[in-house]
Amino acid sequence: MDVERQASAPTEKPVRRDESAVTRELHTSTEPDLRRVDLDPNFWYPVAWSNKVKAGKPFGTRYGADPIVIVRPDNGAPIYALEDRCAHRQVPLSKGKVEGDVVKCCYHGWSFDRKGCCVTVPYLNKPGVGRGVKTYPCKESGGLVFIFPGDPALAEKIPVPVPCQVNNTEEFKTRRFDPHVKCHYSFMHENLMDMNHQFLHRKQMGQITARFLGQDKGENFVEASYSFARKGGEQPLAERLLFGRHDKTIDVKDQPIDEVVTIRTTYPYQTLQIRDKDGDLMMDLWVAYVPLGEHQEETQAYGLLSVRRPKMKFLLDLAWPVLGIFTNRIFMEDKEIVEMEQEAWRELGGDHNVEVFPVVRNLRELLRRSGVPEQA
Amino acid sequence: MDVERQASAPTEKPVRRDESAVTRELHTSTEPDLRRVDLDPNFWYPVAWSNKVKAGKPFGTRYGADPIVIVRPDNGAPIYALEDRCAHRQVPLSKGKVEGDVVKCCYHGWSFDRKGCCVTVPYLNKPGVGRGVKTYPCKESGGLVFIFPGDPALAEKIPVPVPCQVNNTEEFKTRRFDPHVKCHYSFMHENLMDMNHQFLHRKQMGQITARFLGQDKGENFVEASYSFARKGGEQPLAERLLFGRHDKTIDVKDQPIDEVVTIRTTYPYQTLQIRDKDGDLMMDLWVAYVPLGEHQEETQAYGLLSVRRPKMKFLLDLAWPVLGIFTNRIFMEDKEIVEMEQEAWRELGGDHNVEVFPVVRNLRELLRRSGVPEQA
Amino acid sequence: MDVERQASAPTEKPVRRDESAVTRELHTSTEPDLRRVDLDPNFWYPVAWSNKVKAGKPFGTRYGADPIVIVRPDNGAPIYALEDRCAHRQVPLSKGKVEGDVVKCCYHGWSFDRKGCCVTVPYLNKPGVGRGVKTYPCKESGGLVFIFPGDPALAEKIPVPVPCQVNNTEEFKTRRFDPHVKCHYSFMHENLMDMNHQFLHRKQMGQITARFLGQDKGENFVEASYSFARKGGEQPLAERLLFGRHDKTIDVKDQPIDEVVTIRTTYPYQTLQIRDKDGDLMMDLWVAYVPLGEHQEETQAYGLLSVRRPKMKFLLDLAWPVLGIFTNRIFMEDKEIVEMEQEAWRELGGDHNVEVFPVVRNLRELLRRSGVPEQA
Repeated sequence: MDVERQASAPTEKPVRRDESAVTRELHTSTEPDLRRVDLDPNFWYPVAWSNKVKAGKPFGTRYGADPIVIVRPDNGAPIYALEDRCAHRQVPLSKGKVEGDVVKCCYHGWSFDRKGCCVTVPYLNKPGVGRGVKTYPCKESGGLVFIFPGDPALAEKIPVPVPCQVNNTEEFKTRRFDPHVKCHYSFMHENLMDMNHQFLHRKQMGQITARFLGQDKGENFVEASYSFARKGGEQPLAERLLFGRHDKTIDVKDQPIDEVVTIRTTYPYQTLQIRDKDGDLMMDLWVAYVPLGEHQEETQAYGLLSVRRPKMKFLLDLAWPVLGIFTNRIFMEDKEIVEMEQEAWRELGGDHNVEVFPVVRNLRELLRRSGVPEQA
Repeated sequence: MDVERQASAPTEKPVRRDESAVTRELHTSTEPDLRRVDLDPNFWYPVAWSNKVKAGKPFGTRYGADPIVIVRPDNGAPIYALEDRCAHRQVPLSKGKVEGDVVKCCYHGWSFDRKGCCVTVPYLNKPGVGRGVKTYPCKESGGLVFIFPGDPALAEKIPVPVPCQVNNTEEFKTRRFDPHVKCHYSFMHENLMDMNHQFLHRKQMGQITARFLGQDKGENFVEASYSFARKGGEQPLAERLLFGRHDKTIDVKDQPIDEVVTIRTTYPYQTLQIRDKDGDLMMDLWVAYVPLGEHQEETQAYGLLSVRRPKMKFLLDLAWPVLGIFTNRIFMEDKEIVEMEQEAWRELGGDHNVEVFPVVRNLRELLRRSGVPEQA
Repeated sequence: MDVERQASAPTEKPVRRDESAVTRELHTSTEPDLRRVDLDPNFWYPVAWSNKVKAGKPFGTRYGADPIVIVRPDNGAPIYALEDRCAHRQVPLSKGKVEGDVVKCCYHGWSFDRKGCCVTVPYLNKPGVGRGVKTYPCKESGGLVFIFPGDPALAEKIPVPVPCQVNNTEEFKTRRFDPHVKCHYSFMHENLMDMNHQFLHRKQMGQITARFLGQDKGENFVEASYSFARKGGEQPLAERLLFGRHDKTIDVKDQPIDEVVTIRTTYPYQTLQIRDKDGDLMMDLWVAYVPLGEHQEETQAYGLLSVRRPKMKFLLDLAWPVLGIFTNRIFMEDKEIVEMEQEAWRELGGDHNVEVFPVVRNLRELLRRSGVPEQA
């Protein structure tokens, strides 16, 4: 799997009009409840922003129910990740301190190295004790710290993602966000993939309507493309930025917007790209959903949104704060609705979704077959 | 069952002195725990004040564990009630909007009519999908919106209550209240029925003592009558209003108050009426307890308190705010104590009440035999 | 068992250097999880400060899951303790009032005497009802109210503690504290006993290092002694007070401090004493841990800290507020760490401690064999 290639080139495949896109056939399944399917741990997941992990200060984070400490040695050695529990009394190592290459527990001062071995117990005459703590493969990419929560032996075979245009600072300006949402990660994938939910954002987006162009799917991905038409109202400033440099759609009702939006889940990540009528990439969103909690009923998302700089580059700088407010408001609406979905799932004791949109049904199958059974 | 007749004429039956009113015989029971008995859903229960349900704006409420949306169409059609979950992804319809006679989900814009049928899915070429949402019979009476949570086929046979004197505005002024209490509804019935708990309200009511006059019971009701005597202290202003136009009891200790208080549970509602020595109705309280939560361990009460206007009608208007504060303080004391009863029940894992008052024992039997087993 | 004698004279036994103090042998056990061992109820436990229990006003408190009301009659009779639930409807008697020697429930006014018998039901013609409430042996000592939660027949055989130097006001000044900590009591015993955790308090205590001198143990106690050496930094003002009148250690690095600190768990209490080089008692700490909750996963501690008045007695008065802040900061660090231990225990579903320090291992055995199995 080449994450980078897939993330940057989804629209190279032909966009087919899917005639079965609308259907009254209801989804019924004897398969396991999607909300009880855990994410496959044999991928790289972000657990921190690189710049939040300071040299000399351990950083506590989580994947699922597992506490993890990220250590950036103060001697220039690379970062590493350990189980965030001292072998002695299980208190978080992230409350301690980093000395050279080791992390020292705050309680009785036991020290652990990057292999998770206990190397010092200050009040013992011998170096350390036999038992240590679990380690996680750990790498940095695009300003994120990634860990590999699954089988460490597989880590080297799985590429670390390079999110969107984070390294292309000449052409794109990139914004970070990291919302915590109280729902299963699958709701997040479905929310973004199904652009028919623009109705939810009618206050932010105006009377804009998505038109489904087509879909594609493969062993490890599902993709959908849309165009948009404005049914009325004025185009918000920030939306204009997201949809490109030209402004002919302002005040022009029912006129199609030429840009194409392509959303793609390449398991376990998700991207949203906007291309203009010439096929140039205008916006590039990359997001990873990190499960939290024993039952993965909460999600820590890490996202990067790259927007192409306009020819008059100061325009984007001017509009940047507005864009932040705009995307944040949209996100708060999404957060509220997916948390209501999770709550309904909890109250009903299971998934009662009646999904009629083939793209979402394909997405659900992808998530179900790619995930792993919930831990007992 | 004629709720209106029963509510307005309880003291027409002879009040008998019950010689077994006091007893040391303790209540023991092999019957199910009263706090695990659910209310019979085959009655009309209020779930909103009519004036809170605006035309065009769906209103979310609950009965037990079930979310309900009340819809008042913006085209003048009568209100209706649906399960408050979109058939698509189960998010609350009450977060959406009303358009004409239909309610539209906020997420993907699916629309449902008063029969609960999905009539539109905006991005499908066909009208709606086969599946809809559950409906509830729904009517308005006395400023309240009632729903029938049980078998809809029975709804027409069961009368909708007309609470107390709400429609007799010439002779009575009526106050509304809707406290949320964290206890089983049965504690609320017992609290009001047992006037021996005046000790709880000694700060508000002064040293007033209830004297039990007698009780009555039938297939669907239990009723108790009391007179009161002041043991000392001055009569509070608001109490004077509640107990009638004359003021001979002020500063006169141990002198009986001529008014008779009659409390009646006519399943599932409860009333408290005060009549003066001529038998004229001075005060008329009606209250319904709506269960909340899967185990009905919380209660949303809806109450209406009608007070007869004195001959100099402005007096009641003057005293109205004081009466509000007075009744609210008394209610806050009752709320605190019934919530402590619920908490003790929870800690002890069951009902350990030792009830010695026959009226309350009869009431408990009524509630137990009229209710339904707790849902598993 | 003579608690008073043991509490005041622990260092009369020879302090032996324990050669096995450090070891790499790990603790494994088929015995019950220490965090599931309840405290033996057949001891006297403090549940209130004497001066908080006012004559005439019942005082509500708890031991484990059991609510307890302490009653100080307004007629001069001694205090007593009852189950804090009315026999009638189980609401707290502590919400009621004391009249003479009886406590009267706030709800319907039932009265109970010091034997727990119901002596009055105001609205019955007969005195009380047959059933009463449970009583607890109850005594006052050193400004604390103690109850005996176990078998009342054993209460008289077990001495009531006289905490530290609370009655020796001429030579000592005593501070009270009563922190509520969300962890099992056993974490509290281990925390104080293991002075190797001074690393946790490095910000408050400077670079001070404990040196283990030796231990002692017996049927109902474990004891450890330490000396301290400063590795650098200045001696904080309050520490100087705790460690005695002389100040030769200021700015003198690596020089041992002559005082000896002795920590002792005499089941179920714990003490910490500091003696100077002449063996004079400088500081005397006594603490009792009262379990809270059905599973004793929270602890209400009651502590008394006696500090010897210096020759210029006003010095201690001057330093008293600083000492309070100092000890409070240290305590907040301990509270945070023991609550993290409890949380780790909960997350891991059991005790995974790898204890290498023999004193703590002995302490764990003492707590395990002295306690009782968790109530089902």
